[in-house]
Amino acid sequence: MIPEEILRSLVVQTDSKLLMVVIDGLGGLPVRGKTELEAAKIPNLDRLASKSSCGLIDPISYGITPGSGPSHLALFGYDPFRYEIGRGVMEALGIGLELKKDDLAVRGNFATIDQEGIIVDRRAGRISTDRNREICQFLQGEIRAFEGTEVFIHPGREHRFVAVFRGQGLKDDLTDADPQKDGLKAKGTVPLSQEAQRTAEIVNGYIRKVTEVLKPFHPANTILLRGFSKIPEIPMMDDRYKLRSAAIATYPMYRGLARLVGMKILETGETIREEVETLKRHFRDHDFFYLHFKKPDMAGEDGDFKAKVKALEEVDRVLPAILRLKPDVLVITGDHATPSLLKSHSWHPNPFLLYSKYIRPDNVRRFTERDCQRGELGRFPAVDVLPLMLANGLRLKKFGA
Amino acid sequence: MIPEEILRSLVVQTDSKLLMVVIDGLGGLPVRGKTELEAAKIPNLDRLASKSSCGLIDPISYGITPGSGPSHLALFGYDPFRYEIGRGVMEALGIGLELKKDDLAVRGNFATIDQEGIIVDRRAGRISTDRNREICQFLQGEIRAFEGTEVFIHPGREHRFVAVFRGQGLKDDLTDADPQKDGLKAKGTVPLSQEAQRTAEIVNGYIRKVTEVLKPFHPANTILLRGFSKIPEIPMMDDRYKLRSAAIATYPMYRGLARLVGMKILETGETIREEVETLKRHFRDHDFFYLHFKKPDMAGEDGDFKAKVKALEEVDRVLPAILRLKPDVLVITGDHATPSLLKSHSWHPNPFLLYSKYIRPDNVRRFTERDCQRGELGRFPAVDVLPLMLANGLRLKKFGA
Repeated sequence: MIPEEILRSLVVQTDSKLLMVVIDGLGGLPVRGKTELEAAKIPNLDRLASKSSCGLIDPISYGITPGSGPSHLALFGYDPFRYEIGRGVMEALGIGLELKKDDLAVRGNFATIDQEGIIVDRRAGRISTDRNREICQFLQGEIRAFEGTEVFIHPGREHRFVAVFRGQGLKDDLTDADPQKDGLKAKGTVPLSQEAQRTAEIVNGYIRKVTEVLKPFHPANTILLRGFSKIPEIPMMDDRYKLRSAAIATYPMYRGLARLVGMKILETGETIREEVETLKRHFRDHDFFYLHFKKPDMAGEDGDFKAKVKALEEVDRVLPAILRLKPDVLVITGDHATPSLLKSHSWHPNPFLLYSKYIRPDNVRRFTERDCQRGELGRFPAVDVLPLMLANGLRLKKFGA
Repeated sequence: MIPEEILRSLVVQTDSKLLMVVIDGLGGLPVRGKTELEAAKIPNLDRLASKSSCGLIDPISYGITPGSGPSHLALFGYDPFRYEIGRGVMEALGIGLELKKDDLAVRGNFATIDQEGIIVDRRAGRISTDRNREICQFLQGEIRAFEGTEVFIHPGREHRFVAVFRGQGLKDDLTDADPQKDGLKAKGTVPLSQEAQRTAEIVNGYIRKVTEVLKPFHPANTILLRGFSKIPEIPMMDDRYKLRSAAIATYPMYRGLARLVGMKILETGETIREEVETLKRHFRDHDFFYLHFKKPDMAGEDGDFKAKVKALEEVDRVLPAILRLKPDVLVITGDHATPSLLKSHSWHPNPFLLYSKYIRPDNVRRFTERDCQRGELGRFPAVDVLPLMLANGLRLKKFGA
């Protein structure tokens, strides 16, 4: 990986168009001898692979299963060990919140405590999502601000929610206000630095106040908070790479991640075809596009091999429309593998192809894990993808004389 | 990449002979389906590849196009991000100057300014190389030293020259004394540290003096200076690797780079055959040879596919003479790719072969980009080449117990 500052010093502006297609959860594992990609009929991807430079990318490092945060940061060229996105922030992005620079975001559970304050159910009997909404609405009406800090509480599924504290000087070096176990006393958060003391007092005061007003809402009679975090200080894509970047994604989390690095978020619909329509409509206005397809990951998470195969075939069918736009540099890959065998993200590398005027097509004939492995790019970390795209767009000058 | 200090601690001396053949600009891109190497008839290289361990090397990192400085440092086993050679120094090496430790080198242009000091032509109407020589000779006669610092001015092509300041305590953290644009006022250099203040005064005083005496030489009535640099503090090859190293190259820049890392520079002629003769003559006297062939890069830079093919075939024809010397370890590779399609250095990886008694020949049959990719060494950074050569020369002991 090239040091960030050196890469930055090499960037020049040209009018080349770069397109990064991220197929979420792309990589898989064989079931009855074939991975989802190997079982899928993807003639357009196969044909493109045979004209491209191929390889396998590791999202982070051998054996490391990434969340969506680090895997995307790496694809956007950010060292995933240098820039971390906290869990509270990821959760907030996931439900589409636009966080401000100083916001403190945190994940929460409604929970049940007894009269001594001992947690008897960390999930408040898994109250319904509807009930959750009612309680959040009530709380938001009851407590808009606490000691000069605004508080926003946003319902999630069942007993889950996201809280955002908005005020000045809030810090995120706080322990979880959640012992993660029933039978223990619910404690507040503990500040991990002198500077975080005031924030801890505000948060703990808020928890006490909430617990007071929640008495009639048993079993949801308190809250547990974990993953306090603020958006990281992160350089913007457009500054780092002299790009006008834009993101197209149907899910809030991916739009949120793209917004974190400063991409313009393009309004789009719910389907892959609508996403490609959006790309077409805006193709003149930007020079870097991040296009995210979610479905294969969902099918993988469900452990539904056939649904994942279908989702991949659906991606294949929109490829001709993408190619008609003639991007100068086209990358197709995944942010991480989601093998239906594992029903979760995994550490396995993902097929990768790069198509441009300046490549040596290798002998890869199919866009699958085992075929791409034989490609010229070999096996390499995702964080090197962006420099490679810039180079192929003739957007990097020579390093040294 | 193994940390420098650890590698150093493992080196032992043996009497094995190591030979590194660097074919400048080796890698290419396909034109009508074939790269220059694929189009070339190189039976000797092909035969050697089939008995060697092959791979593809990245000069620096994915997507990074190197100048000759960093690409050679990497081949010599130096971390190219740790050791940087400034532009002034590279330019001085390029015209064959031998710099001393404290010399400050800088690239220059003769330029035209108007009476208000505004630059009207950064290139002084591209004066002829002959005129340039006359002016430099005049200046050298006029101003041999300035405030106790010697100054040497060496003509280049057209309006270009190299200046060297020789004295004590000169620093190179100076801004360019060149706004890089017509229509702006010519300004002197600005020191970037307290310590560089005196150097800036000397340089700016020199520029003023030169501008005074150049009045009759309109349009060449001032100078612009950029890329102030000193030779980097760099450990010597022979100390680091317990070698007696020597360099054979027809071009001054490569001899200069080899001199920077302490290699002995062997006198040679103008042709590849003369270089091989030089190798033969000195083969007993050294145990590491860097043998540089320039022609393929030049043809690539000219965008002349056929000339590059021919230059590669010429390299192939001297291979039997090299093999007759029976080096214990022979590496053949490139410092960077120069595809004739791009008419410039590029970021693409280069074919690599290593021949010694201690390798597993892989299934590579041709010395081309796409064949070497299938070799056992895979795709790896150039900085790992030297440790591999030392190992094959049985010059590295075990790491750890």
